[in-house]
Amino acid sequence: VGGLHHLSKAGRLCVPAINVNDSVTKQKFDNLYCCRESILDSLKKTADIMFGGKQVAVCGYGEVGKGCSAALKAMGSVVYVTEIDPICALQACMDGFRLAKLGDVVRQVDMVITCTGNKNVVVREHMDLMKNGCVVCNMGRSNTEIDVNSLRTPELVWQHVRAQVDHIIWPDGKRIVLLAEGRVLNLSSSTVPIYVLSITATTQALALIELFNAPEGRYKQDVYLLPKKLDEYVASLHLQTFDAHLTELTDEQAKYMGLSKYGPFKPSYYR
Amino acid sequence: VGGLHHLSKAGRLCVPAINVNDSVTKQKFDNLYCCRESILDSLKKTADIMFGGKQVAVCGYGEVGKGCSAALKAMGSVVYVTEIDPICALQACMDGFRLAKLGDVVRQVDMVITCTGNKNVVVREHMDLMKNGCVVCNMGRSNTEIDVNSLRTPELVWQHVRAQVDHIIWPDGKRIVLLAEGRVLNLSSSTVPIYVLSITATTQALALIELFNAPEGRYKQDVYLLPKKLDEYVASLHLQTFDAHLTELTDEQAKYMGLSKYGPFKPSYYR
Amino acid sequence: VGGLHHLSKAGRLCVPAINVNDSVTKQKFDNLYCCRESILDSLKKTADIMFGGKQVAVCGYGEVGKGCSAALKAMGSVVYVTEIDPICALQACMDGFRLAKLGDVVRQVDMVITCTGNKNVVVREHMDLMKNGCVVCNMGRSNTEIDVNSLRTPELVWQHVRAQVDHIIWPDGKRIVLLAEGRVLNLSSSTVPIYVLSITATTQALALIELFNAPEGRYKQDVYLLPKKLDEYVASLHLQTFDAHLTELTDEQAKYMGLSKYGPFKPSYYR
Amino acid sequence: VGGLHHLSKAGRLCVPAINVNDSVTKQKFDNLYCCRESILDSLKKTADIMFGGKQVAVCGYGEVGKGCSAALKAMGSVVYVTEIDPICALQACMDGFRLAKLGDVVRQVDMVITCTGNKNVVVREHMDLMKNGCVVCNMGRSNTEIDVNSLRTPELVWQHVRAQVDHIIWPDGKRIVLLAEGRVLNLSSSTVPIYVLSITATTQALALIELFNAPEGRYKQDVYLLPKKLDEYVASLHLQTFDAHLTELTDEQAKYMGLSKYGPFKPSYYR
Repeated sequence: VGGLHHLSKAGRLCVPAINVNDSVTKQKFDNLYCCRESILDSLKKTADIMFGGKQVAVCGYGEVGKGCSAALKAMGSVVYVTEIDPICALQACMDGFRLAKLGDVVRQVDMVITCTGNKNVVVREHMDLMKNGCVVCNMGRSNTEIDVNSLRTPELVWQHVRAQVDHIIWPDGKRIVLLAEGRVLNLSSSTVPIYVLSITATTQALALIELFNAPEGRYKQDVYLLPKKLDEYVASLHLQTFDAHLTELTDEQAKYMGLSKYGPFKPSYYR
Repeated sequence: VGGLHHLSKAGRLCVPAINVNDSVTKQKFDNLYCCRESILDSLKKTADIMFGGKQVAVCGYGEVGKGCSAALKAMGSVVYVTEIDPICALQACMDGFRLAKLGDVVRQVDMVITCTGNKNVVVREHMDLMKNGCVVCNMGRSNTEIDVNSLRTPELVWQHVRAQVDHIIWPDGKRIVLLAEGRVLNLSSSTVPIYVLSITATTQALALIELFNAPEGRYKQDVYLLPKKLDEYVASLHLQTFDAHLTELTDEQAKYMGLSKYGPFKPSYYR
Repeated sequence: VGGLHHLSKAGRLCVPAINVNDSVTKQKFDNLYCCRESILDSLKKTADIMFGGKQVAVCGYGEVGKGCSAALKAMGSVVYVTEIDPICALQACMDGFRLAKLGDVVRQVDMVITCTGNKNVVVREHMDLMKNGCVVCNMGRSNTEIDVNSLRTPELVWQHVRAQVDHIIWPDGKRIVLLAEGRVLNLSSSTVPIYVLSITATTQALALIELFNAPEGRYKQDVYLLPKKLDEYVASLHLQTFDAHLTELTDEQAKYMGLSKYGPFKPSYYR
Repeated sequence: VGGLHHLSKAGRLCVPAINVNDSVTKQKFDNLYCCRESILDSLKKTADIMFGGKQVAVCGYGEVGKGCSAALKAMGSVVYVTEIDPICALQACMDGFRLAKLGDVVRQVDMVITCTGNKNVVVREHMDLMKNGCVVCNMGRSNTEIDVNSLRTPELVWQHVRAQVDHIIWPDGKRIVLLAEGRVLNLSSSTVPIYVLSITATTQALALIELFNAPEGRYKQDVYLLPKKLDEYVASLHLQTFDAHLTELTDEQAKYMGLSKYGPFKPSYYR
């Protein structure tokens, strides 16, 4: 998406585009709920970790960080959250997490999980301070969040333990457990629920149909968000699986709210 | 806010306005977290309800409905959610709530709570079907969500039990417990945490300062959302209370993300 | 109950007695579930506390401490638990709480709640270290857990703020908020759900009937636990309220398990 | 354990035995916390199920059922519980689960998990009613809980899909997904956390040492529970892993409680 925006700003986007990654059904479902499940699955499959009683630092409290933190808390871990954005930080507090800087908790935690989309969130200085057996992994942007290169120095020994699991051994014998060499953990080590995949794929298909069918001039050579109504349609197609029964507005209610009975039901900025 | 938009559309808004009600710190904090606490408080203070084991219908799964549902589930209630918007409906499902039409569960629930912002969500037909002792209350728009007028008929007896609590008695002896006569329950019956109030008041104050200080032409006679940077500033002012430690971007990270180290950290549509 | 056991050991108990306080329906329902609800209610009614983001020390992780900790965690507080019993301590860890000594966290917490049944759990040295505004209260044994007498010294000023709330003011202006003068908070400041009361009262009534009807010689002048079958009967009487449907053993299943179809279903030591 | 009790009753137990299976550290840790984690792990590894929004029937609400229900609820499933014991049934209600008979919910659920220790809990009549794709598995007693033999009839087709997963296909095309052919799911399909294993192994080792060292006459040819003090010792050995800090009784407190400072801290019946 960043690439598309760059092209657009540079005047080099030659067709209209819809940024489905930032649609509500993608952000709030794939990122949040999918990660809530796959973080547990991935950690079991790779490092066979017991979650109860463990201390974990989750870096970043966007949708991915929210999903990971909620899952680990639900399984009995004590979770610390790091954030740069004060709004997400305040959400973490109200959701019952201690907001800390990584440097202040890195000595005590059993696990560090990055979910920021940023680079060099976990650096060598942090890893030097970690305790023996600390697990380090990434659920955010591939390769960049953990400075894995800083671990490729002569005094550290790498031991490949099994698929997606390396032990990095310090001269004093301390080991950290690096998962998937810092690549995205759930893509490397778990499956994606077919249901969430279906949501994402439907979003993409509807975006293409919308662009194809749109009357001349509705979309220019720019990057758009998925129209709210299509976002809602994606969701409605996925309710049946849960035997979920949607309520219909009465005529009187639709009029009172100033809405069509068939949506969209929310302003475009609503999330 | 609806009123402001009407005025604006009609060309009759004579000054710029900022819609602080839809700022993130208002929507995601006051509405969600405040209601999560005040629904419990209000129900205890008025009807002295035990939450464990109770079946509850929550109508609407916006921020208010999310807060009420989460709190009641956490206290051991079985919560059914009703929704008209398929996106919010799907969130309810993924959060572990059965999505139902009110008519399909109204016979079995011990409590109905409206959080829709709509009108006539609970009507006489529903109340005729409720079981003896069912509690009915509103956390959404004052007076409109429960059709209280439909209960003012000769065959029903009203008994005022204590402040904010009326029993409506059917000819066969069945009673429903109506709280605050359908007005907003937490405004009638609980206090608002001073902390959440402070968030809301700060948002309003900063919006006024922004409008006052803005250079000529930045705002026209229209309705605006609070600039993201101010939204973030409100949040940052409230982190100290929690002894929460925000992480600062390094220069390298800010450059990588294309962000200022001082925010805003998210695009304006991010919520 | 302690008194009864003393009398019994001293050979001075002149009638048989049943210790209903330690029956499962009392311990696991009144203590756990009732406190889970009444701690929230009591804190709102007295000190009007917002739970989200607050740091709380809960002293003791028996049924009362489990109820208080679960409720506060569910409402977004960060809870630290103190314990003397390693089994309960390990449960606290597995349930996701940091196990700490009070002295190690008392400077940072916003609230301290005692649930130990012991004496002098919170002493003057702790209170000298608390931060301004810290709330101190007791859900365990009346009067003994917080050393309130240690606060009645000339250099501290007591300010009675409202019913059940005193501010104790240090010479430097620091205040702690003492609730119910250290007596049991939920008995002073909240109601008890009629449902839980019914469980407890039924237990007591059935114990009396059992003692009255028991054939000569079944009970000596000693202290007994409620027979498991009666404990189960109490529970079964309270299921209807929840529209709960119990499954009956088939003849084949009862035989396989070596059980009567009508209970008791568990050995007497099962809890 | 059943076998030991049989031998003992028949006068054929030729040595003393300690029933470590019913010690607190086994029941409350291995059964509860281990199952809370391994049910999720097993279901992901075998059937790759998304938990969010799914309806699940959990049969039995002992420690295993409590662990499974809590985990699935935490991950966003809607859980129905079946029970024969009214005390456990009431706990399920207060914990926020609908208590139902299997026959009443079997048409609607996406999954059935047995945790009863009983036989023929899920029978052919139930499976005939299940919807297409329903997953059936067992976390309780091996082989007996699901009547798998009833599925070996000519009109049903078995399709072995992968290790531990069979599809049973009805003549109309409906499939149910049977895991581990009804054997214990987590033993077949997940690992056991080394930590929980350590608790269980320590319990067994200490029981053997106790029997070996006990003075003549302390234990007869009978089945005993692990002495509370040893149970507590097992727990204390496992606290360090969590960096957990136990509080020590002061002399004054020990005297007040009538306890040794070194335990046991609870009466033997306490759980």
